[in-house]
Amino acid sequence: MERQINMLGKLSFTAIVFVMIVSLNAWAEAASPTPAPTDFRAFWKDGLRYETEDKNFTLKFGGRIMNDWAWMSEDAALRADVGNQEDGTEFRRARLYTSGQIYGNVEYKLQFDFAGGDADLKDAYLGLKDFPVGSIRAGHFKEPFGLEELTSSKYITFLERALPMEAFAPSRNTGVMLYGSALAASPPRMTWAAGVFRDTDDYGEGQADGAYNFTGRLTFLPRNENDGASLVHVGASYSHRSGGPRRFRSRPEAHLFDRFVDTGTFASTSADLVGLEAAWVAGPLSIQGEYVFANAEVASQANFDGYYIQASYFLTGEHRKYKPSAGAFDRVKPKENFGFSKGGRGAWEIAARYSALDLNDSPTPGGKLSNITAGLNWHLNPNMRMMWNYVHADKDAVGNADILMMRLQIDF
Amino acid sequence: MERQINMLGKLSFTAIVFVMIVSLNAWAEAASPTPAPTDFRAFWKDGLRYETEDKNFTLKFGGRIMNDWAWMSEDAALRADVGNQEDGTEFRRARLYTSGQIYGNVEYKLQFDFAGGDADLKDAYLGLKDFPVGSIRAGHFKEPFGLEELTSSKYITFLERALPMEAFAPSRNTGVMLYGSALAASPPRMTWAAGVFRDTDDYGEGQADGAYNFTGRLTFLPRNENDGASLVHVGASYSHRSGGPRRFRSRPEAHLFDRFVDTGTFASTSADLVGLEAAWVAGPLSIQGEYVFANAEVASQANFDGYYIQASYFLTGEHRKYKPSAGAFDRVKPKENFGFSKGGRGAWEIAARYSALDLNDSPTPGGKLSNITAGLNWHLNPNMRMMWNYVHADKDAVGNADILMMRLQIDF
Amino acid sequence: MERQINMLGKLSFTAIVFVMIVSLNAWAEAASPTPAPTDFRAFWKDGLRYETEDKNFTLKFGGRIMNDWAWMSEDAALRADVGNQEDGTEFRRARLYTSGQIYGNVEYKLQFDFAGGDADLKDAYLGLKDFPVGSIRAGHFKEPFGLEELTSSKYITFLERALPMEAFAPSRNTGVMLYGSALAASPPRMTWAAGVFRDTDDYGEGQADGAYNFTGRLTFLPRNENDGASLVHVGASYSHRSGGPRRFRSRPEAHLFDRFVDTGTFASTSADLVGLEAAWVAGPLSIQGEYVFANAEVASQANFDGYYIQASYFLTGEHRKYKPSAGAFDRVKPKENFGFSKGGRGAWEIAARYSALDLNDSPTPGGKLSNITAGLNWHLNPNMRMMWNYVHADKDAVGNADILMMRLQIDF
Repeated sequence: MERQINMLGKLSFTAIVFVMIVSLNAWAEAASPTPAPTDFRAFWKDGLRYETEDKNFTLKFGGRIMNDWAWMSEDAALRADVGNQEDGTEFRRARLYTSGQIYGNVEYKLQFDFAGGDADLKDAYLGLKDFPVGSIRAGHFKEPFGLEELTSSKYITFLERALPMEAFAPSRNTGVMLYGSALAASPPRMTWAAGVFRDTDDYGEGQADGAYNFTGRLTFLPRNENDGASLVHVGASYSHRSGGPRRFRSRPEAHLFDRFVDTGTFASTSADLVGLEAAWVAGPLSIQGEYVFANAEVASQANFDGYYIQASYFLTGEHRKYKPSAGAFDRVKPKENFGFSKGGRGAWEIAARYSALDLNDSPTPGGKLSNITAGLNWHLNPNMRMMWNYVHADKDAVGNADILMMRLQIDF
Repeated sequence: MERQINMLGKLSFTAIVFVMIVSLNAWAEAASPTPAPTDFRAFWKDGLRYETEDKNFTLKFGGRIMNDWAWMSEDAALRADVGNQEDGTEFRRARLYTSGQIYGNVEYKLQFDFAGGDADLKDAYLGLKDFPVGSIRAGHFKEPFGLEELTSSKYITFLERALPMEAFAPSRNTGVMLYGSALAASPPRMTWAAGVFRDTDDYGEGQADGAYNFTGRLTFLPRNENDGASLVHVGASYSHRSGGPRRFRSRPEAHLFDRFVDTGTFASTSADLVGLEAAWVAGPLSIQGEYVFANAEVASQANFDGYYIQASYFLTGEHRKYKPSAGAFDRVKPKENFGFSKGGRGAWEIAARYSALDLNDSPTPGGKLSNITAGLNWHLNPNMRMMWNYVHADKDAVGNADILMMRLQIDF
Repeated sequence: MERQINMLGKLSFTAIVFVMIVSLNAWAEAASPTPAPTDFRAFWKDGLRYETEDKNFTLKFGGRIMNDWAWMSEDAALRADVGNQEDGTEFRRARLYTSGQIYGNVEYKLQFDFAGGDADLKDAYLGLKDFPVGSIRAGHFKEPFGLEELTSSKYITFLERALPMEAFAPSRNTGVMLYGSALAASPPRMTWAAGVFRDTDDYGEGQADGAYNFTGRLTFLPRNENDGASLVHVGASYSHRSGGPRRFRSRPEAHLFDRFVDTGTFASTSADLVGLEAAWVAGPLSIQGEYVFANAEVASQANFDGYYIQASYFLTGEHRKYKPSAGAFDRVKPKENFGFSKGGRGAWEIAARYSALDLNDSPTPGGKLSNITAGLNWHLNPNMRMMWNYVHADKDAVGNADILMMRLQIDF
């Protein structure tokens, strides 16, 4: 690190942000006076919301609770490999958040997950909504990679995301992202997103000279009819990761148990991730699949990959809801909310998934794992669901395990 | 653990929950359409509350602060036994929470205590209110055991609960509970509760093969007149605890200081707890007592017990408020709120308690402790109080200590 | 510690509080009935606010996000002295809070900072507003010392407070404070505050026999015209610290990097701090400076000091906002809020600061550090700003470093 020229180099990141902003400042023409104190309307819409009449200020306060129970039965060979696994219960997620849009053009979100006793920083960002090209967002949020990764844990079909997502998807880091939608007005037929990120820990902190990641995603809707009841989604993500040692690993789609496959930490100057995704909604039936390929720079190249394919079916006739502006799936609304004295039976959904992950190409082979999952979801109302998953996990050349899981979930 | 039959056994818990739900599903008849976005009325009622006109959606956001100051003077013999105790201050509780009822029949609560720097999960549950038999609740909440334990820390008469409560009451764990009230409509004359729980840590996590606890409680009101100003409460609790090693211990009813009696951890396959409780309210005077007996399976049986008796008197004429649907005491409402320029003097309450705890029957005797406490409470308004306690703690055959404590408390 | 007389001594603190309260109780005359459940008006005013019509109940829920990015280039000599410093990003502050006034005379605030993964207790207090002499506040909050320390981190001109503030200002501890304002009604020309505090950790906990601190502050406004656009502020603070070992240290006004000067922990029975402060607002220009002197009791006396002087100028014509009742600076309101499609350019502010700190007089000399900082602030609207700081830090007789920092900030 030669100091004389380096400070100039380090100036570049802020300079780019700064010049971009100042030059764009020329767009700004007429002055709008600061709005007078404005009264809120408070109402329920999948949670507590506030809105001023001109919609310049909209706020939300809420949270989510996911209480999981899990039981595992593993064979002796697998137990010898990964250690004894005890049944148990945990709060998979216990979150509070607030989000909003203020002054008509600024958005923010601040969300903490307190499960496990520490304050994991989840979404913590601010952004400008009417940026000349799309929107801009800065802070701690999910890198744009992968359909299932970008679908909220509130709306995924199974208790856990598929093996390749857990092993490869970058998830939340701190950075700056440009994003938008296009091809049609409302709903759009395409979304795009691209950003620069630093790897950060669970609390949004990261320190490493010169380590930046570039991640982008493109999605399209070749078909979107009947308010999403007939829909085809395709998309692709790419990420270049620099700096630091590297590690890929995964649990068997059950968070209470240990990781079954793990490359261990190995030296690697950079890595590239490619993700391909597709989903099809045909009324109550939906099919979704993704493939992720990872290449890590080591002495020689190391290649890893994984994929999953899943199908779900609503016995009660609902369809999986898709959010075109996000390019991801959204909240299920039962046709009837559940209730004993009055009310109906909620929405009932059955689902199956096959997922596979190959982590064998690292300096110390990480193992191959495949899972078959059967799922049953009971959506009592738009904000509450119970989920049951039966997972058969097979670690190649080692052994297998059967896992039963139950989740109680509410968000507001 | 024989794997072939074990998975069937493990299926039982979820199967019971599932079959119960599906069969009860038959109750559900008519479909109620999902309510349209609904406007909230926001108002103050011991905190910030939201309510839709049809009361299908009611929400609350709030918290509590308890700032404690404590000074201790112990004799040399006790100091040699439990170590030097320094005066100090702490936030005994610093909590944020949200709770509510949504869609007319679903309740939730999410509450964290951040005192001490970590996020202790307190109440985190969801439930169905119009279950055919009473209500059902699942998640992390207090096992139904003991009058003082089930009375909120906001409403207990002294800074700390009595010795036998701290030593024996299971407090919060993760489980499923059925509960309800009976014998009369409003207010009810009886409450019942029964549940299955797993032992969990402060964050709602617990892993141990086959370790479940069963806990239940029954309470009656032989007398309830003048809006609770003349009331007699009796009740009994029972808990069977399985799994794991065991430990009973207690501080001297002062949280800033060390535990004076402690059995240490000892092997024990199971334990049974029995609690008996009674309370009498006669206008400003109230008397309350409990007895707890604990039996732990060790090489031979080990028996422990403890009890307390307390009395309080409102100098300003209020009476302790009882909540019949919970079978526990509730918020005191001063006749006059305190204020200098306008307003009155708040409510003033004096109280005394004697409590005793015998932990000597464990493999390593844990000691015997008795406390005498004098208390003075100043309720400035329904949401704020100051408390002073003077505790004389006597450890049998060791020595004694005098403790002075002060608490500043607000909740909203 | 002679036990017989000591308990009397320990009684004194609560006795004083108690006697003060009971005697003041005589002020209370007429009884005001508990207010009926009262409807809130919810509105935006720099955040979400609730207010009953009679203003007896006013509540606020909100938070703040500060996402920092920092790059440092240090010379070899400094690197050898303080270790290698890596570039990075962090959430400097990530807070949630609620505050309010209830029953017309009681105020409370509960605020947590979750940055770094633990729940740091920030403001957690309750108070009486219409105390016969000013107001009284008890709990965890900032000791009244120093203009920049008492100006919220949301409103300070640079990313970090100046060196002497970080090294010497007591910041938040647990105690009881009397405070008020005088000399003129609205706005007042003078503020005063005095309190007794215990040193506490980040979570509001502290235990040490007999260790209390006394801190007070006086401020005056010789000039306050044009709604604060022409203003002169002068003030002085004093603090006596008893008990425990002592340590003074400071980072180079950049939180992501290590401390450059540090006395280490040294034995010291007590210390005295004196702070002098002045600020001048002349329209868009403001100048502010402070001097802090610290004397610690060691074998011989040890003296430390530090000072800073800063100037800022609003290119867009705003002026720094001062809050007379707090004796500290407040939120900047841009003349035009920023927006691309509609709206203006926000407020742009340039600033410079020189600060110096001398920690050399301790048993192990702590070092001398001076910083020169250039700053640029872009206030997009009253609740959001971006900040850039360039810091040149010079450690006397060792070496120097150049630091570039950027902050994204929003509060609500």
